[in-house]
Amino acid sequence: MSQYWSPLLAELSPYVPGEQRSGKRIVKLNTNENPYPPSKQVMQAISDVDGTQLRRYPEPASQNLRDALAKYHDLDSSQVFVGNGSDEVLALAFMAFFTNDQPLVFPAISYSFYPVYCKLYKIPFVAFPMSDDFSIDWLEMPNEVGGIVFPNPNAPTGLSCSLTEIESLLANNPNKVVLVDEAYIDFGAQSATVLIDRYPNLLVTQTFSKGRSLAGMRIGAAFGHEDLIAGLDRVKNSFNSYPLDVVAEAAAIASLNDETYHREHVNKIIASRDWLTKQLEARDFNVLPSAANFIFAAPRHIGAKQLHEHLNSCDILVRYWDKPMLQDWLRISIGSAEELQLLINSIDQTSGLKGDAR
Amino acid sequence: MSQYWSPLLAELSPYVPGEQRSGKRIVKLNTNENPYPPSKQVMQAISDVDGTQLRRYPEPASQNLRDALAKYHDLDSSQVFVGNGSDEVLALAFMAFFTNDQPLVFPAISYSFYPVYCKLYKIPFVAFPMSDDFSIDWLEMPNEVGGIVFPNPNAPTGLSCSLTEIESLLANNPNKVVLVDEAYIDFGAQSATVLIDRYPNLLVTQTFSKGRSLAGMRIGAAFGHEDLIAGLDRVKNSFNSYPLDVVAEAAAIASLNDETYHREHVNKIIASRDWLTKQLEARDFNVLPSAANFIFAAPRHIGAKQLHEHLNSCDILVRYWDKPMLQDWLRISIGSAEELQLLINSIDQTSGLKGDAR
Repeated sequence: MSQYWSPLLAELSPYVPGEQRSGKRIVKLNTNENPYPPSKQVMQAISDVDGTQLRRYPEPASQNLRDALAKYHDLDSSQVFVGNGSDEVLALAFMAFFTNDQPLVFPAISYSFYPVYCKLYKIPFVAFPMSDDFSIDWLEMPNEVGGIVFPNPNAPTGLSCSLTEIESLLANNPNKVVLVDEAYIDFGAQSATVLIDRYPNLLVTQTFSKGRSLAGMRIGAAFGHEDLIAGLDRVKNSFNSYPLDVVAEAAAIASLNDETYHREHVNKIIASRDWLTKQLEARDFNVLPSAANFIFAAPRHIGAKQLHEHLNSCDILVRYWDKPMLQDWLRISIGSAEELQLLINSIDQTSGLKGDAR
Repeated sequence: MSQYWSPLLAELSPYVPGEQRSGKRIVKLNTNENPYPPSKQVMQAISDVDGTQLRRYPEPASQNLRDALAKYHDLDSSQVFVGNGSDEVLALAFMAFFTNDQPLVFPAISYSFYPVYCKLYKIPFVAFPMSDDFSIDWLEMPNEVGGIVFPNPNAPTGLSCSLTEIESLLANNPNKVVLVDEAYIDFGAQSATVLIDRYPNLLVTQTFSKGRSLAGMRIGAAFGHEDLIAGLDRVKNSFNSYPLDVVAEAAAIASLNDETYHREHVNKIIASRDWLTKQLEARDFNVLPSAANFIFAAPRHIGAKQLHEHLNSCDILVRYWDKPMLQDWLRISIGSAEELQLLINSIDQTSGLKGDAR
């Protein structure tokens, strides 16, 4: 606290990201990073950026990337927005569409950055209760809402919503923006981008950080009706004209162009997720069915907090929240086969269970 | 305009950056870009980033870059903040320190993004009148202020303030943050960073876009008392945890490490500025003494608007504002020697003057 801080600043509750501890032996399963590097075409695109591109400002709209994304998703370029990671895109969307008097609503268990944005922009919000099985209970949603946001698949549960569910939400709230945060969409859930032409109130955000192995590069996107995209551009151009650097744009376009690599590695992660789920179920964990690149699992033979501490002491990082409903659970990112085996070995140290799972 | 836009969104007046027209023959002197590419060490650092760094999130604070900047400026790391270009850093600073009831003040002629940020964050502001010679007339500043911001050197005039002037401003406003926007500091003015240890109300912003040839990479920084830096971190962590990508951080550190290249190329730009000033003065232009990588010049033999149009038709881009006080002037970025010669040739087409300047 300082006399120079604005009243707003003093009231903020900043987001706390997962720990970025580094070191050769660290098994990092705490921030849902991709275990595989980006494709060689991406690395080549980065090396190919030349000094003239760097000394010049980027084209402010990153139009080449918007065009590539439009083609990839079978949309018009006017339906595409890009930014400095999907966190930035979400923040700009909150400012553009949710700074009104009625509360923004989101499920009580969802991305913990949502209430942080709300405090930043003084947006009233209601985090409505989940079902006991962690699914989103839309009947719990207040009647008068200023907007709706939720992750699909959800985090940290990994559970997904069907397109039918999303479509009824859009149809029932035609005057409010419904923001579907698809950070983890590559790993099995159905993207709502196919609904964009029919629902002018739908905004979908995605990221290159998870399925495309570019968390270090900070690239996010939004898809929606051109009026929503124009709104995002107005906020962007009132905040930072050039949020995406030329290297990031080149890397993103190269990633979209190497679909074979993308699909192959996403499928590997899905196969590892299935393997890990079976291993943990065989060790009597409760594991939610995940459509993401992480699983949400509750050990029964040991407390989750205790297991988190044990794993931490073995240099295996997973995410734990000491909060209502979450305190019995761990969120575990899908790492490489080797990393997941180390995780299982470490879990086996905490019980007599061993070797009875394939 | 759309029914989904928030009331705030509808009222914004977004910033309009200089045109990023591209093409082989374009002479681009409109966005104050560096005519020289970044050093080979920077290019190497970019190529050296590996797939593991890209698949992982950046360290959220970009601590390695903060440490390198602290060393470079002889400050403590706790006095350094970094972000996605100095536009982002300025936006976060406005939110952190200027969202209060008293007006933020800045000179009427200064960076045209300042009033845009104010509208975004609903900050009252007063743009106080300049002296007739375009210098900042601090006597025109209102008595009750919520904060002060100005560029040094100023844009688009290129005129600089002395450290004595800045110090008296800091001493006379001990309870308000004074933000010195040093985007163009490399080209001759004295940096206020040397005052940071003595004035807890001083915040200085800088960029890698101009002197360091990295406009395409989006890297900005702020320097100030650790309480101000902590405030910026609170806003950053409520907006976007990871604003700087790993490639940008590596490029920035490499740039700081190649001081010889930096100084050599800054000196070349200063020499070109002196050459261009003489050429234009010989052609009867009024040229303000510039401490930046651009000059602000008023032709006398032709209207500035008309000359702007002529240059544009020759694929030579310079910046013109059809606004009070500015309408007789052009802002011309210091390009390469070849580009500046093309500019002079094109200007000579508009008059009988030729060859009488060295």
